[in-house]
Amino acid sequence: MKQTRREEIIQAATQLFREKGYGAATMRDLAEMVGIEAASLYNHIKSKEEILKLICFETAKKYVVQLDFIEKKETNSVEKLRALLKLHILMVTDAKDAVFVCNNEYKHLTEPYLSDFQKIRRGYEKRFLAIIETGIENGELKKVDSAIALYTFLSAVRWLEIWYRPERKIGAEQLQNDVCEVLLSGLVK
Amino acid sequence: MKQTRREEIIQAATQLFREKGYGAATMRDLAEMVGIEAASLYNHIKSKEEILKLICFETAKKYVVQLDFIEKKETNSVEKLRALLKLHILMVTDAKDAVFVCNNEYKHLTEPYLSDFQKIRRGYEKRFLAIIETGIENGELKKVDSAIALYTFLSAVRWLEIWYRPERKIGAEQLQNDVCEVLLSGLVK
Repeated sequence: MKQTRREEIIQAATQLFREKGYGAATMRDLAEMVGIEAASLYNHIKSKEEILKLICFETAKKYVVQLDFIEKKETNSVEKLRALLKLHILMVTDAKDAVFVCNNEYKHLTEPYLSDFQKIRRGYEKRFLAIIETGIENGELKKVDSAIALYTFLSAVRWLEIWYRPERKIGAEQLQNDVCEVLLSGLVK
Repeated sequence: MKQTRREEIIQAATQLFREKGYGAATMRDLAEMVGIEAASLYNHIKSKEEILKLICFETAKKYVVQLDFIEKKETNSVEKLRALLKLHILMVTDAKDAVFVCNNEYKHLTEPYLSDFQKIRRGYEKRFLAIIETGIENGELKKVDSAIALYTFLSAVRWLEIWYRPERKIGAEQLQNDVCEVLLSGLVK
């Protein structure tokens, strides 16, 4: 029961941090959203930063767990990249606010958490880059600069965290298909 | 002479707004950067917002002027898209801070300037979209959702405004070639 209320608080905070920004969001705002006294919040969570940490690290962990899985797949680099692009889209369509907070509000983490978080991000990017480099080396991918390809891919899916709403006519499946088509095979026929 | 000092102030402000954010940047910071008394700034510019307006509208105008030119070119949709992608990259390699401020700090414009600015942006995106739609209709481009293609393109080049530094080993030409290659022809061989 207590766990459920805690989860409810974290979910509300995710929405609040996204809409108002972490800096401007107050525990009072959060208490109002959940419908309890501000003082009672502390029965469930320690601080505003504890919630930010949870959102950032839990979200980052989801990406890393899937990357572990994708790396181990017995498939070629193209299919690994397709799976990674689909993962990035799925993360947004599943948990847009958490992805937004993780990508934009992490800057408000204090040390050592900020460095820890950045280390996880850099590690993730390095492994994403390695998949691209393997594909270039074995001739599956074109000989472009691997860093340009990496950041083009990572950046290309970032609009979704702002644009995506479940009520849009364009669903998760079409997003996955069309974004993969453009980035892997190109828009030109 | 006065014009030159004014330009110097605007250039310093562009860097300041980018580094500190428009909200946190003060006229005192700006005066220090330029090396004059804060009160003297007002001989050259009216207010902090006047500078933000200048940066946003001047930068937006550069995109629109080039779009006018690209639309009128007697060439196919693919070459128009290539020219647009190159324009977005060139804007960053030429004036990274102004592009960053224009893309991120415009939110601080007050009305009616905010609405005017957003109207320019929407108009630009609509015309970019029309080029993609023409290309899909006449069979030059693949039948993906045109909005997905548009935002994937616009988003794909956004990392540059954070990442690009003139001292990087990767220059403007390679950026243009590799980004166009990935987005137009795909990373897969």
